[in-house]
Amino acid sequence: MPSPLRLALTPGEPAGVGPDLVVRLAQQAQAAELVAIAAPELLAARAQALGLELALSPFDPDAPSAASRPGELKVQAVSLAAPVHPGTLDPRNAGYVLETLTQACDGCLEGRFDALVTAPVHKAVINEAGVHFTGHTEFLAERCGSEPVMMLATPGLRVALVTTHLPLSQVSAAITRPHLVEVIEILNRDLRQRFGIARPRILVCGLNPHAGEGGHLGREEIEVIEPVLADLRDRGMNLIGPLPADTAFVPKRLTEADAVLAMYHDQGLPVLKHLGFGQAANITLGLPIIRTSVDHGTALDLAGTDRADLGSLETALGIGIEMARTRRNR
Amino acid sequence: MPSPLRLALTPGEPAGVGPDLVVRLAQQAQAAELVAIAAPELLAARAQALGLELALSPFDPDAPSAASRPGELKVQAVSLAAPVHPGTLDPRNAGYVLETLTQACDGCLEGRFDALVTAPVHKAVINEAGVHFTGHTEFLAERCGSEPVMMLATPGLRVALVTTHLPLSQVSAAITRPHLVEVIEILNRDLRQRFGIARPRILVCGLNPHAGEGGHLGREEIEVIEPVLADLRDRGMNLIGPLPADTAFVPKRLTEADAVLAMYHDQGLPVLKHLGFGQAANITLGLPIIRTSVDHGTALDLAGTDRADLGSLETALGIGIEMARTRRNR
Repeated sequence: MPSPLRLALTPGEPAGVGPDLVVRLAQQAQAAELVAIAAPELLAARAQALGLELALSPFDPDAPSAASRPGELKVQAVSLAAPVHPGTLDPRNAGYVLETLTQACDGCLEGRFDALVTAPVHKAVINEAGVHFTGHTEFLAERCGSEPVMMLATPGLRVALVTTHLPLSQVSAAITRPHLVEVIEILNRDLRQRFGIARPRILVCGLNPHAGEGGHLGREEIEVIEPVLADLRDRGMNLIGPLPADTAFVPKRLTEADAVLAMYHDQGLPVLKHLGFGQAANITLGLPIIRTSVDHGTALDLAGTDRADLGSLETALGIGIEMARTRRNR
Repeated sequence: MPSPLRLALTPGEPAGVGPDLVVRLAQQAQAAELVAIAAPELLAARAQALGLELALSPFDPDAPSAASRPGELKVQAVSLAAPVHPGTLDPRNAGYVLETLTQACDGCLEGRFDALVTAPVHKAVINEAGVHFTGHTEFLAERCGSEPVMMLATPGLRVALVTTHLPLSQVSAAITRPHLVEVIEILNRDLRQRFGIARPRILVCGLNPHAGEGGHLGREEIEVIEPVLADLRDRGMNLIGPLPADTAFVPKRLTEADAVLAMYHDQGLPVLKHLGFGQAANITLGLPIIRTSVDHGTALDLAGTDRADLGSLETALGIGIEMARTRRNR
């Protein structure tokens, strides 16, 4: 019987719903050991605000792992710089937030944790504190020295993106052959290694409406996407497309696919969020560590209430555990 | 008791599935009188190929309308230029296809028909015949002298588009204040006049991911979309947004909306086609005539078989009848 997996959990922005969600998640029995990387007094205060019992104990990396029991949570303590008021951002705690991510990432890289599950951070307040920060994904990728690929998943659908947070007018220029090759290689490799899919079937969207309609509605399919897919198929990958995006997401098509690769954010995510709202998670592929995340923001107005939806964090945790199990069993 | 509505029905490309679908639709009792604008011998041959009974009779515009009965169909005859072989395109019949559209459009403009429902045409073969043709919508709009707005609908969702068949790299430049004003005015007016919605609630997507995230991911929201929405709200319109596209299509949001306005094709149609495959129709707003259409192509490989899905044509007919009824009752 292998020891339980051990996952790091970062509650993210202390004034947001992240601590609430972590405290509520800790009310459940888990299949793995969860270790929050956070200020213990923050979690204790939030549990009290929600009227929940929570026994916090310090994480000991040398102790054997044990699946988390309801109402108990291990904590690797990080110190806050300023008191937390739910709903009110404070740039003084930006360094705290980044320190939790750093410790969690390093713990994964050094093998103390099998995966990292993140609750939302607030980009603007970190930048306000004078730290250039474009998001979890970029921060972790830089620390790992890897190129990340963003994938969102909900039961029945995985959508990976070739470009992510770019103005629409810059998308076409960002779809280059080397970048597309790299993204598909990472997606194909991680679907195999992290999801245990022997030969992933990937539906690749075109960039233009009707996938360019033979060049009448744009030439990127002919000049970039089709040649890349042909090369990668020659190397044995199971790639279907380029497909018109409004065809790729038809339910019958999706049943034949392990993932859809969209060329840009709003081509791929509306269907995923429509299908999976409250049950969708964000997964960073391409890193040496396993990292999943909620798909929502800090919802400051809900912090300290019990109205935030736990579904996305549960989904992110479930996928993180599955990915870690798949990696361990390889 | 008002007389039944009378709708023109164009089977479109004679070698495609359009004639099959029309013949099969004519097997059903209808709430309106359907008049096919087509070659009678084409419909007769296709009925025979499908093993269906079909009694064709010439349309008399001076006779009172009568709801179509199962197995019967009125025809306004247009002559083919060449014999039809299902599945095989023939540029010689391009003029026939355009003539059916012209007669149908003129019949609507002159009040002989209450609406036009179109089956698919094949753009490339018409262009091959030397006629510049970019689609039904543009052809009808030019004949009507109006600016069209494309909307797709399926039960529970209507999606209108600010831009349609443009390469993605040209979309940003096409989102101008005058164009956006015109599209929203048409959408708002037609939802009132053609769908009977007193004060339409329209969800407007941003152009960029996260609707530009306050200018960090593109400035079109700040410079174009928000000022237009503010102006139109001042004129009494109920416009919500600009919303991130992956938020706009969340089911809870959709229940509050009469339509979603997407800035471009692949932002809006993947969700619609996912939700409504086989039950989606294309509606051209902004014209003096009512026109609905199937949302699929000619499916040449299915012509002359009974495997084409009738759902989209049924949906298009149902919406066309509802729109005509709403207009009549105003």
